[in-house]
Amino acid sequence: MKAFNDLADFNTDEIHALLELANRLDERPEPQALRGKVLSLLFLSPSLRTLASFQAAMTRLGGGSFVISPEMSIHGIETRPGIVMDGAAAEHINEAVPVIASYSDAIGIRAFAERKDLEFDLADSEFKALTGLIHTPWINMESAMNHPCQNLADWKTLDDLSVAANGGKFVLSWAYHPRALPLAVPASTLYMAARRGMDVTVLRPEGFELPEPVMHRARAAAEACGGSIQETDDRTEGMQGAHVIYAKSWSSTRHYGDRLNDQKLREEHIDWCVDEPWFDNAQDDCRFMHCLPVRRGVVVSETVLDGPRSVVIHEARNRMLVQMAVLHQMLGSEQ
Amino acid sequence: MKAFNDLADFNTDEIHALLELANRLDERPEPQALRGKVLSLLFLSPSLRTLASFQAAMTRLGGGSFVISPEMSIHGIETRPGIVMDGAAAEHINEAVPVIASYSDAIGIRAFAERKDLEFDLADSEFKALTGLIHTPWINMESAMNHPCQNLADWKTLDDLSVAANGGKFVLSWAYHPRALPLAVPASTLYMAARRGMDVTVLRPEGFELPEPVMHRARAAAEACGGSIQETDDRTEGMQGAHVIYAKSWSSTRHYGDRLNDQKLREEHIDWCVDEPWFDNAQDDCRFMHCLPVRRGVVVSETVLDGPRSVVIHEARNRMLVQMAVLHQMLGSEQ
Amino acid sequence: MKAFNDLADFNTDEIHALLELANRLDERPEPQALRGKVLSLLFLSPSLRTLASFQAAMTRLGGGSFVISPEMSIHGIETRPGIVMDGAAAEHINEAVPVIASYSDAIGIRAFAERKDLEFDLADSEFKALTGLIHTPWINMESAMNHPCQNLADWKTLDDLSVAANGGKFVLSWAYHPRALPLAVPASTLYMAARRGMDVTVLRPEGFELPEPVMHRARAAAEACGGSIQETDDRTEGMQGAHVIYAKSWSSTRHYGDRLNDQKLREEHIDWCVDEPWFDNAQDDCRFMHCLPVRRGVVVSETVLDGPRSVVIHEARNRMLVQMAVLHQMLGSEQ
Repeated sequence: MKAFNDLADFNTDEIHALLELANRLDERPEPQALRGKVLSLLFLSPSLRTLASFQAAMTRLGGGSFVISPEMSIHGIETRPGIVMDGAAAEHINEAVPVIASYSDAIGIRAFAERKDLEFDLADSEFKALTGLIHTPWINMESAMNHPCQNLADWKTLDDLSVAANGGKFVLSWAYHPRALPLAVPASTLYMAARRGMDVTVLRPEGFELPEPVMHRARAAAEACGGSIQETDDRTEGMQGAHVIYAKSWSSTRHYGDRLNDQKLREEHIDWCVDEPWFDNAQDDCRFMHCLPVRRGVVVSETVLDGPRSVVIHEARNRMLVQMAVLHQMLGSEQ
Repeated sequence: MKAFNDLADFNTDEIHALLELANRLDERPEPQALRGKVLSLLFLSPSLRTLASFQAAMTRLGGGSFVISPEMSIHGIETRPGIVMDGAAAEHINEAVPVIASYSDAIGIRAFAERKDLEFDLADSEFKALTGLIHTPWINMESAMNHPCQNLADWKTLDDLSVAANGGKFVLSWAYHPRALPLAVPASTLYMAARRGMDVTVLRPEGFELPEPVMHRARAAAEACGGSIQETDDRTEGMQGAHVIYAKSWSSTRHYGDRLNDQKLREEHIDWCVDEPWFDNAQDDCRFMHCLPVRRGVVVSETVLDGPRSVVIHEARNRMLVQMAVLHQMLGSEQ
Repeated sequence: MKAFNDLADFNTDEIHALLELANRLDERPEPQALRGKVLSLLFLSPSLRTLASFQAAMTRLGGGSFVISPEMSIHGIETRPGIVMDGAAAEHINEAVPVIASYSDAIGIRAFAERKDLEFDLADSEFKALTGLIHTPWINMESAMNHPCQNLADWKTLDDLSVAANGGKFVLSWAYHPRALPLAVPASTLYMAARRGMDVTVLRPEGFELPEPVMHRARAAAEACGGSIQETDDRTEGMQGAHVIYAKSWSSTRHYGDRLNDQKLREEHIDWCVDEPWFDNAQDDCRFMHCLPVRRGVVVSETVLDGPRSVVIHEARNRMLVQMAVLHQMLGSEQ
């Protein structure tokens, strides 16, 4: 495996093999598998789970990792192309990325969307520029449009909870958040649930429709895998019979890159905080999923988050396990 | 061992076993003992020794560790309970701690006292709230009232220096410091020396008495272990015949949580800087101990700190060794 | 090996042995060589390559490392000697360095020149004060005047590229930079090239002569090793027949420690940006070297930096390999 960037790059057997490997490594640790191997972790965007879970994953497999982020004691990293570097930053990403990669058996990179131009972000252009600089195997730790480690962890969580792949209803719901957030999680989660063959409902206020290319890709995947894609702004309808609600805030696609109008529209929907009444018409054991970090009392009520529906810690732990599987396939000597 | 929180949780044989294990691991390294095991280190309060010594300890035992602190490139951690999270912090400690723990075989947590309310701090309420969130084995890396790794390292240091357990005079002395500091080190050091059976004198100006529950616990331990507890504000009397002076600043208990009055009272005692004349009536080879960091020329003179009495680097190194013993007992596969 | 501070401390056979070991460890990894061994990395000055490459090196050899820098969540480190510590910093370097060393099998230290007084910096006085505090084996990760890891990596790069040791022309060229930079890299690179027996030209504007003791040491090395040292401010003459240009900015020695006059003189030479026309009279395959970080469009044009002459990533990777050799010799159990 030369890159782990998008579930779409893997067929269903390959995804199942990764999930089985994740379970196997959880049950039967292999503390020698990646002896002497080095994973570098480049964070151009902040992180807690990714930071922690990748370091833990490498340790559990007998290797090691190092972390680089611009906030650390380094010279400052310039990311703009073609610039005369007479300002504060002393190093360009064009050197930093190949240098870091040169010390590594694999490199993980995290860089959020710029959120100025939707076409640019939909093409994952910034991230492709970064990974185009290197030949080392790499892992997408969240780009403008992808978050494959989260997607694989969520797939595993649904399996662990015995949520039906075909026939299970998966609600991807927008939620209020004080800041405009990227599309990577909602777009790639929608695709994951579609690839898993689920009946997916995208529940969001008007103005927060996911971009048509994202919806199109999901519809094609659903069709191929025995599922379906619905879309609604009606919470009662959306939650009807749901097995899982996956909450996430994202910025308005109607006002993409327009901070003021995005904020104005978002604030009209401050009541989109997932709370117990949302579950009135859902399955009794309907689960609450979220990739974290989550804002208590804003995105979800404390009652739901601290209650039996919530599987967010289970989801988070699965990040480590699926990443161990990816690293094992990418760097294991017998692969 | 499910938690390492307080020397009071261990009987004397168990403490001696940990100290023997620390010595054994120093002499006969076991670089495979914790192969593939992960220690997470959560710093809600700053650290140098704890940060460095725990990472070194895990490496020496063949495992690994990762560090999380709010200053790192993460989303900001909210610690207040029951809050609507519409401010800067994007993640609540209620998720962060269980998530970090879920990647770990053990978790170390450091969180200083709030120092607003003495009853609250004496009960170690904030720390209990954190550790109550998890089932993973955990280590207290300094809470409002405890610093068991420091206490065990100091006990080992006294053993290493052949300071008598029964009959040795241990002076815990207040010292001036420009800032109001927590009670964790003085309170738990007093208990450690009492548990070791020493004759302990608490030397402090009026207004800096340790809280009565702290003194009471120490008196009971001293009685059980063949030692004694004295208290004085007279330095000549206090230092008379001392084998060890353990210097530490702490905030005024008379003005607990009252910054201005605490500072005013503290500044009356700016002359409480341990200097060579303090040792006039002490044992000739009376040692100077301090948990570090220490302010030169403020808490202790350069003459004493750089002179032969000072054992502060030896103490600091013992932090690593006793932590190796704790980790070995907590995570070692044969335990 | 008790210290790795300066190529001058090693005879030519010892240098060749380190370079051979670096190649061997690249071809035949030894992921058990430093099992359970700990390297501490103290950064009093910023870094990317050093930070990353040392961590990677220890992992590849089966050991581990930890990083301390004042920007981290620690108490603040005071470096001035003899000070009464009643300000912000809570810990003195006089404790911090021995404590960190006490947890380590080896310690790497990075501390740039103060650049106030040339004599002081030429004597590497500040760095000697730091290393004088410890007995643990240590590595110079860049001091006021030395950068031996960079030098050894550059030597290996020249070998890798089959640049002639005797008879090869090595141009060390000053370049413009918006900030006054230290002398460590130019001074120690000049010495490295001289020790390798090359014909070295120092190309720099007037006012940027390297200090006479630096030139003197290089001339003696060149004489002993079959090379030569030239000096010029004429770029055409300097680049004539060059096999390698090694670009680096450094502060004016004429105005050492005088920020305003240094800046004024530097800005007269803003055209000293290495660009393709510089190579008109050089060897056809003349290489461009730089220790990184490098400012694009300021120190070197994008054309040169992104073109086939540039070997900067190769150089950077060699940092890791030569450091593995140094660590292996310093800490390997059979040494």
